[in-house]
Amino acid sequence: MSNCIIAQSGGPTAVINATVAGVVKSNQLNPVYDHVYGGLYGIEGILLERFVDLTNMSDEENEILRQTPSSALGSCRYKLRRGNKEDFERLFEILDKYDIETLFYTGGNDSMDTVAALSEYAAANNITNHRFVGCPKTVDNDLMEMDHCPGFGSAAKFISSTALHTWLDLQVYPFSRKEVFILETMGRDAGWLAASACLSGKVDVLIVPEIPFDKEGFLNRVRKIVEERSKCYVVVSEGAHYADGTYIAAAEAKNDLFGHAVLGGAAKALEKMILDSFIAPRCRVLDLTTAQRSNAIEQSLVDVTESYRLGMSAHMHSADKTFTGKMVAIKRKKTEQYDVEYVSVDADKVANFVRGFPVEWLLHDYKGITEEGMNYLMPLIQGSPDIIMRDGLPAYIEPYFMRGEAALVSQ
Amino acid sequence: MSNCIIAQSGGPTAVINATVAGVVKSNQLNPVYDHVYGGLYGIEGILLERFVDLTNMSDEENEILRQTPSSALGSCRYKLRRGNKEDFERLFEILDKYDIETLFYTGGNDSMDTVAALSEYAAANNITNHRFVGCPKTVDNDLMEMDHCPGFGSAAKFISSTALHTWLDLQVYPFSRKEVFILETMGRDAGWLAASACLSGKVDVLIVPEIPFDKEGFLNRVRKIVEERSKCYVVVSEGAHYADGTYIAAAEAKNDLFGHAVLGGAAKALEKMILDSFIAPRCRVLDLTTAQRSNAIEQSLVDVTESYRLGMSAHMHSADKTFTGKMVAIKRKKTEQYDVEYVSVDADKVANFVRGFPVEWLLHDYKGITEEGMNYLMPLIQGSPDIIMRDGLPAYIEPYFMRGEAALVSQ
Repeated sequence: MSNCIIAQSGGPTAVINATVAGVVKSNQLNPVYDHVYGGLYGIEGILLERFVDLTNMSDEENEILRQTPSSALGSCRYKLRRGNKEDFERLFEILDKYDIETLFYTGGNDSMDTVAALSEYAAANNITNHRFVGCPKTVDNDLMEMDHCPGFGSAAKFISSTALHTWLDLQVYPFSRKEVFILETMGRDAGWLAASACLSGKVDVLIVPEIPFDKEGFLNRVRKIVEERSKCYVVVSEGAHYADGTYIAAAEAKNDLFGHAVLGGAAKALEKMILDSFIAPRCRVLDLTTAQRSNAIEQSLVDVTESYRLGMSAHMHSADKTFTGKMVAIKRKKTEQYDVEYVSVDADKVANFVRGFPVEWLLHDYKGITEEGMNYLMPLIQGSPDIIMRDGLPAYIEPYFMRGEAALVSQ
Repeated sequence: MSNCIIAQSGGPTAVINATVAGVVKSNQLNPVYDHVYGGLYGIEGILLERFVDLTNMSDEENEILRQTPSSALGSCRYKLRRGNKEDFERLFEILDKYDIETLFYTGGNDSMDTVAALSEYAAANNITNHRFVGCPKTVDNDLMEMDHCPGFGSAAKFISSTALHTWLDLQVYPFSRKEVFILETMGRDAGWLAASACLSGKVDVLIVPEIPFDKEGFLNRVRKIVEERSKCYVVVSEGAHYADGTYIAAAEAKNDLFGHAVLGGAAKALEKMILDSFIAPRCRVLDLTTAQRSNAIEQSLVDVTESYRLGMSAHMHSADKTFTGKMVAIKRKKTEQYDVEYVSVDADKVANFVRGFPVEWLLHDYKGITEEGMNYLMPLIQGSPDIIMRDGLPAYIEPYFMRGEAALVSQ
């Protein structure tokens, strides 16, 4: 038998390590490879021959790895460019040297482009002993060919629980205290994460990149809510923008008399608009930054289970010697009870595209999302895994890339 | 028998409702009062005769109330001033009208001042049929006479888990990517919440109000960490300040050439210092705002249990007809295993004072806290309550102040 390697790329998620755990466990149950290597810092580390050996991971480590947020193997923003022949040659040299037949690459659409580029290169050069398999992940949920992406459900759960809790907190003072709360979520190109806040049932105003931002319309909506209820809860995607593509934050910066950039993002810009319009004397802004994609305690059981099974499925799919340039995708079954299956799609159908939140699921006037949208999102946040705790906090695996040179495989 | 009323004041916490649940349950088990009323919006609502009747709350409602964050009875910032005779007369008139013998008031040092003021007024006017009992709560953990305050443990747990998770997320890119993460916590006057982030074991730099801020010392420390490890994790209290009392954020605002106020708080100001000094090209700021005091899923079991028992203890203490002007405090026993007892102290010893984080528990050069500090904090975040979920999110009680006029007691 030969070996395989798995590496992680792009932004971390709460459950990206579960896919690694799934590949390792699947190979323990049904050995397809002699060794399962973990490549550190994505393609960047593989090019430097920085691997660890995950083959004989204990059950305990596997279980804790599944609940450890962030990328335990490290990540990179390094993009393999089709013109860069040197990188391709070096990579195949290393795969040969370590007898690595299959590279599993977890990531978003950039990473699927890497998978597509590597398999194209192999085909063009008649290389048949190396294969490339994509394992999708992204909190943004914006990959084509997927019903939804591993990592999204847990982020959606954290965001909706945060919306529920900060909404409860917002309400406590009497009517005379007018106040607006603005929650900013990730989502540079798509509104999935912001929309998921609506699962709390508490969002008064939702602003996503799929609908061009209209300042007057927005302020009218907030004014109306504040007049009626005194408190208003707003959620905005970081990537929300005007019709001409200008980000909300950037437009407010331009409005500054001295040309100073306004610090902060979309939520800070909305706060400024509301205060400048005297709609409410008080706003509170919460930009969840990386906390929304890295929480272990509030993982969705559905999400972490799917991420794990996707790893197992990718491993088993790869027993087929013709399986390359593919991504393992999640498809929702048309059953009454929520259920999914793992299917394969061509990685180049996913690479470099973005799947936005369906505009037909958005209510007009920033009022949130339709019941159909709710029905799509609801199953993805269900269930809470039993988290192994240590000293009051979730147990976690020390990142493999922080274990020093002694932990590395060398040849 | 006569009646009692409980009301909530000041900023909400994740477990403040558990104290209400404790008073109600204790009266069901050992009836001291005919009715347990809930006063809406603190003293402000009591003055308007806005009460609900909690006497016969079901076990299910009691259980869900315990896990509902924020103040289910509403809160106020209204301060009863000793000179304002009209308010006092009106309040005693209402207590007479509804035959209310005991007022339980949950809150921080302002609320304990209200308890003290009301009992002083009663004594000065020979009023013996009304009594006033304080139930402490504050995420800030800064009340005198308390080992620690209900609400703090859950906030500390959320903050330390957030620090752990965002630290894991911060590490994933290779050494060449220098980056600083800055977590801002609540704590206008005391550093307890910021210090609790050290329970994660991941804090490189800790800035609290108890140690005057020194910009050069801070930047030197961050520079050293970034040079050594490329990533640096900073935690700062919102109330951190220079030796002359100027808040960090305010000082940076003064430095702005055009006299513009810098948007954001202490963390944003630290980010500006770091970027201006070219220590790292990239910072990420997370100001947890009200999310840190309102999370149900990440409650500390120790905290929610103590808050509940404190309510029961306050109720039982109040069976003593001379019990007034008192606060029920938590005292840590000197046992090897962590354990507490509930004792009573005079409310005026707590009113208007602040208990800071012990300076002797702070390591020099912003390096975090001592082992003694860790040993104090560690027991407070232990255990996770079994949270009742509904549609993937924690079940919660609809705030009593949002149930309309029909829910009110009237006479």
